[in-house]
Amino acid sequence: MFNKLCLIGVGLIGGSIARAARNHGLCGTIVGYGREADRDNLNEAQKLGVIDDYCVSIEAAVKDADCIIIATPVGAIEQVLVELKPYWCEQAVYSDVGSTKGNVVASAEKVFGKIPANFVPAHPIAGAEQSGVSASVNGLFDNKRLIITPVGATDRDATARIQQFWERMGAIVSIMDVDHHDAVLAATSHLPHLLAFALVDLLGRKDEQVEIFKYAAGGFKDFTRIASSDPTMWLDICLANKQKIIPLLQQLKQELDMMERALDEGDSRRLFQTFTYAGQARQRFLDQLTN
Amino acid sequence: MFNKLCLIGVGLIGGSIARAARNHGLCGTIVGYGREADRDNLNEAQKLGVIDDYCVSIEAAVKDADCIIIATPVGAIEQVLVELKPYWCEQAVYSDVGSTKGNVVASAEKVFGKIPANFVPAHPIAGAEQSGVSASVNGLFDNKRLIITPVGATDRDATARIQQFWERMGAIVSIMDVDHHDAVLAATSHLPHLLAFALVDLLGRKDEQVEIFKYAAGGFKDFTRIASSDPTMWLDICLANKQKIIPLLQQLKQELDMMERALDEGDSRRLFQTFTYAGQARQRFLDQLTN
Repeated sequence: MFNKLCLIGVGLIGGSIARAARNHGLCGTIVGYGREADRDNLNEAQKLGVIDDYCVSIEAAVKDADCIIIATPVGAIEQVLVELKPYWCEQAVYSDVGSTKGNVVASAEKVFGKIPANFVPAHPIAGAEQSGVSASVNGLFDNKRLIITPVGATDRDATARIQQFWERMGAIVSIMDVDHHDAVLAATSHLPHLLAFALVDLLGRKDEQVEIFKYAAGGFKDFTRIASSDPTMWLDICLANKQKIIPLLQQLKQELDMMERALDEGDSRRLFQTFTYAGQARQRFLDQLTN
Repeated sequence: MFNKLCLIGVGLIGGSIARAARNHGLCGTIVGYGREADRDNLNEAQKLGVIDDYCVSIEAAVKDADCIIIATPVGAIEQVLVELKPYWCEQAVYSDVGSTKGNVVASAEKVFGKIPANFVPAHPIAGAEQSGVSASVNGLFDNKRLIITPVGATDRDATARIQQFWERMGAIVSIMDVDHHDAVLAATSHLPHLLAFALVDLLGRKDEQVEIFKYAAGGFKDFTRIASSDPTMWLDICLANKQKIIPLLQQLKQELDMMERALDEGDSRRLFQTFTYAGQARQRFLDQLTN
């Protein structure tokens, strides 16, 4: 599909894109870009054969590239766009992998005046607690959802190329409005992460006083897995999407108020209905889980 | 150790106790007790070889038993004690597997005037979302925690026998004050379950309006696993331990208030500290996880 794929950031996601693009024969050369501070990681990426080469100069990295994917943490995307701007190429197609899209679109508008037609905002719903190229894996996107959020100005051909690129890497692509994307992800990903962080923060302090984690079991392990996610990455995401997250946090607190009241009053019927509905709703989720 | 083990309730836990007791050669005969309505499950338990026999008369079930374990849902224990009372045998040792202990002790005091010396309240920290004898497994208690919560009146020999019984079934036994047990479990088990139920209840209603579960990934699956737990069992547990759960719910809401404020004010430092501390606390939990 592409002669030269340039990955801005070669971590878990960037590295896994490189692997998938190569495994599916979607590009000739794969070049990674990173800062001086990332040199160890970039060296490792090259040693692992994940990328063919890397540059710490963005100008050299993007030269002759016909596909450029920004795979940095969400909070770094605006700065990357600033750095890309002088070398922006109308013939290439650009995309990103940010977990929030409203802020990426806003950054592009800020940097370019209006969002470039050949920049296609996208978000692969895949990841793990680990980071760095050593955490990248083959097949990470197989049967995973990928959401493209084009805006009015986005070129249809560019969107189609990014869609095809991801589909050929194994993903199931949906096209969605930016605002809807951010609302959906706030609910199914950002809010659960905040809850897990909040709970483990609270209980961690209790554990320091009287050992409580010693008596926690498998359910607790699964429930809190996402609290082991990278704090920097999640700080970026939560701040970037706070307009959507805050109302959900408020709704959840209302739900917890209801539960507290039901417990206090011994309202078995209300609690039973809530627990039962939750179990059924989760079953609906499991039934359509693609992986 | 015992000639005749009687299990009051042969579900996931009761069935797994029968399997472990047999596999480790801890008893001669294993008899299950259940009501008429449980006959299908009891038949299956016998067919699977989990129990040798069963009775739907409690008098017949406990006759000559030297160890009786109540393995019913928490909410049924008081009624079981009422039914056991006329046939209570001073030479036998009695125990239970309830997830909350304050209410079990209170029930025993209510039924018997004071808690019988040969009744040793206990709680194996093991389980799953499934229920019924078909969900019982060999080795369920291997390296799992079991907490015994004796009270002042509890006979030391009876406690020692129950401790030995569980240790020989593979469990790691701790002795703990009833109140401390209920506080610890409220934090590491009951509160997380309530949170999972609350979140999935909230999001399930959103999913009915606009499909959001379609875009949820592996993290959401793990985070919500416990929302698939049996609603009846969890209703019992939450009501039985509400005195300990309600203050924790209130503390968690304060924690969520703090997060909401930090998001709203863009207080990166506060959020980063919380996320980082949570990640470190979870690592402490993982480091000492026994299974």
